[in-house]
Amino acid sequence: MRGVSVIGTGLTKFGEHWSVGFRELITEAAVKSIEDANIEGKEIQAIFGGTMASGSFIGQEHIGALIADQLGMNPIPSIRMEAACASGSVALRSAYFAVASGMYDVVAVGGVEKMTDISTEEAATALGGAGDQEWELFLGATFPALYALLARRHMLEYGTTEEQMASVSVKNHANGVLNPYAQFQKEITIDEVMNSGYIASPLKLLDCSPITDGAASLILCASEKARKYTDLPIEIVGTGQASDTLALSNRANMTELNATKEAAKQAYSQAKVDSSKISLAEVHDCFSIAEILAIEDLGFFSKGQGGKASMDGRTALNSDISINTSGGLKACGHPVGATGIKQVCEVVWQLRNEAGKRQVEGAEYGLTHNVGGSGATAVVNILKRAD
Amino acid sequence: MRGVSVIGTGLTKFGEHWSVGFRELITEAAVKSIEDANIEGKEIQAIFGGTMASGSFIGQEHIGALIADQLGMNPIPSIRMEAACASGSVALRSAYFAVASGMYDVVAVGGVEKMTDISTEEAATALGGAGDQEWELFLGATFPALYALLARRHMLEYGTTEEQMASVSVKNHANGVLNPYAQFQKEITIDEVMNSGYIASPLKLLDCSPITDGAASLILCASEKARKYTDLPIEIVGTGQASDTLALSNRANMTELNATKEAAKQAYSQAKVDSSKISLAEVHDCFSIAEILAIEDLGFFSKGQGGKASMDGRTALNSDISINTSGGLKACGHPVGATGIKQVCEVVWQLRNEAGKRQVEGAEYGLTHNVGGSGATAVVNILKRAD
Repeated sequence: MRGVSVIGTGLTKFGEHWSVGFRELITEAAVKSIEDANIEGKEIQAIFGGTMASGSFIGQEHIGALIADQLGMNPIPSIRMEAACASGSVALRSAYFAVASGMYDVVAVGGVEKMTDISTEEAATALGGAGDQEWELFLGATFPALYALLARRHMLEYGTTEEQMASVSVKNHANGVLNPYAQFQKEITIDEVMNSGYIASPLKLLDCSPITDGAASLILCASEKARKYTDLPIEIVGTGQASDTLALSNRANMTELNATKEAAKQAYSQAKVDSSKISLAEVHDCFSIAEILAIEDLGFFSKGQGGKASMDGRTALNSDISINTSGGLKACGHPVGATGIKQVCEVVWQLRNEAGKRQVEGAEYGLTHNVGGSGATAVVNILKRAD
Repeated sequence: MRGVSVIGTGLTKFGEHWSVGFRELITEAAVKSIEDANIEGKEIQAIFGGTMASGSFIGQEHIGALIADQLGMNPIPSIRMEAACASGSVALRSAYFAVASGMYDVVAVGGVEKMTDISTEEAATALGGAGDQEWELFLGATFPALYALLARRHMLEYGTTEEQMASVSVKNHANGVLNPYAQFQKEITIDEVMNSGYIASPLKLLDCSPITDGAASLILCASEKARKYTDLPIEIVGTGQASDTLALSNRANMTELNATKEAAKQAYSQAKVDSSKISLAEVHDCFSIAEILAIEDLGFFSKGQGGKASMDGRTALNSDISINTSGGLKACGHPVGATGIKQVCEVVWQLRNEAGKRQVEGAEYGLTHNVGGSGATAVVNILKRAD
């Protein structure tokens, strides 16, 4: 299996896009990534796109073909992948295999979601399809409720507090202020989080990631050919994916996501590093508790210590480990199918030293962690700055 | 890139399944394929599943995780792929790359759709998402209407007749009678097709494939290791995929599917054969005109001659070329996400000499052809009997 590197990145601003649609978001991100890679569109041999629920959000399936069509890239093959909020990351893995196999040298991989064309209630129902429709959503358990259960158990077993969870959102908003792509570029305080209304106790409005429109795109290239295009290829040195039960009620343990641990094990093993080598990570903070679970399950902090570590500032920019420098799902926004690709864009920019005011100093390795549903899918990728 | 072979096949009966759901269909097909491959479930390293519109059909996304969960296969990675009615085939290609790359030795690839849990009108709308939602479905053009336009143009340019189209359905029903998995195991006549009601002129009810529930599953293995499991591995010697415009109105030509031609070119080239070597083909006959386009675009008959060839019996079982020995989408049924995988099951059985009363004699190569939408995606695979 040969190496695969990122040679181009493209991102739309994340937010509520009232004046452009699904197709225009794709175009903007894709064209930016093609320009960033300094290639011509005709050099791209295949497209892999992640979208979670376009059927529900905009009445459109067959997204792979739509992307190729919108970009004028027919007749190259184009596929859509879906794994709920990890759709972008599973698209990335399929693209990775297609290049690693030797079938293609240069491919595009994107993620996109246009979530604001339907009501918030309809969007919550569509997103509920990421959980167990029969045993959770049908019975009324939308995603804030599911993560609230995880939060309650973590509080019970480890003494994690609502203030500690709030500190995750505060830190991510502080990073979001430094990111021009972020949906929310506004600082918030612990008090503001604590005084925001309960959505599903103990989770309050400011513990929750928003509904967002956006798209992200990457150009991947066989590492052996990447120097033809760029002096700064960023190699994907490890990738892992794992599954767990769709319904929370079937899990062996409510204070960890086993899929995260398994995916991380695969990625660390392939990359031949452990968590201590990682300088920055974009992790899946769909809710503040999810970031606490992630930084524990990825091995950055021991189990039960994630809340305290967050409160103590150990995950802030250029602290022990820089977590969610983009602002994360909370502040940068969470267009579900695009998130996994946006995470990789952010890590690539950091490793290229192009992250501006939110630059992490001296990073060699960066990690992305993307979760589908309440943890039934997790993907972990490790990227490395070229020597 | 190393070779990849099919070592296991599993299929549910296709039809209207009122007493079982999406999950039970998956289980039946998957377990059959695991038994057929003579492996243990724990030897499977990853799952690739094709489903078109589960969000609309059953309110459930995150199908990869659901499959792994339902089969008790956590924590292995599991992904869902979508390309409308070619969803099964794009899943197969992603699985193929993952094995060809060397990442995995043994993987499962499946397709599933449960279409009868919603009304026919709702199903037609969901299926319309395979076309261009903004420029076709929103304006009322459902799939029978789109294929009716293709039929009209073919009739105008080549003198293709409604009787010739009817002969496709008659032949596929004759094959369906011989297939215990088929939704319709009943002969029909040209007169019956001609006297069935118009759905979208010139297409009548019996020119149209039905709404179907079903699932199909394959076990793929690196060819270099396949003999460990079976004396009869069937190798995927060529695979191609191509894209075209989502909307028919943007096509350069209305009497061919360019995506089929491009995908076939890739597959023939990789397999180092031309169309004359193919003894049997499962082609995408969502409507009778679609089979006529397919047998022309795949090179079995020259452009414009597909209707006459069908009428003359040249595509019947053990004639010039055996087309749709399973009964095709028309008689075997068309659970959209499952169709591409069912096609491969049928070709594998034929190449193993296990097709019973519908056995094609002396076949060395078989082909599958699966279309998404009105031709915005096409996948062609070529399989070969082991020497």
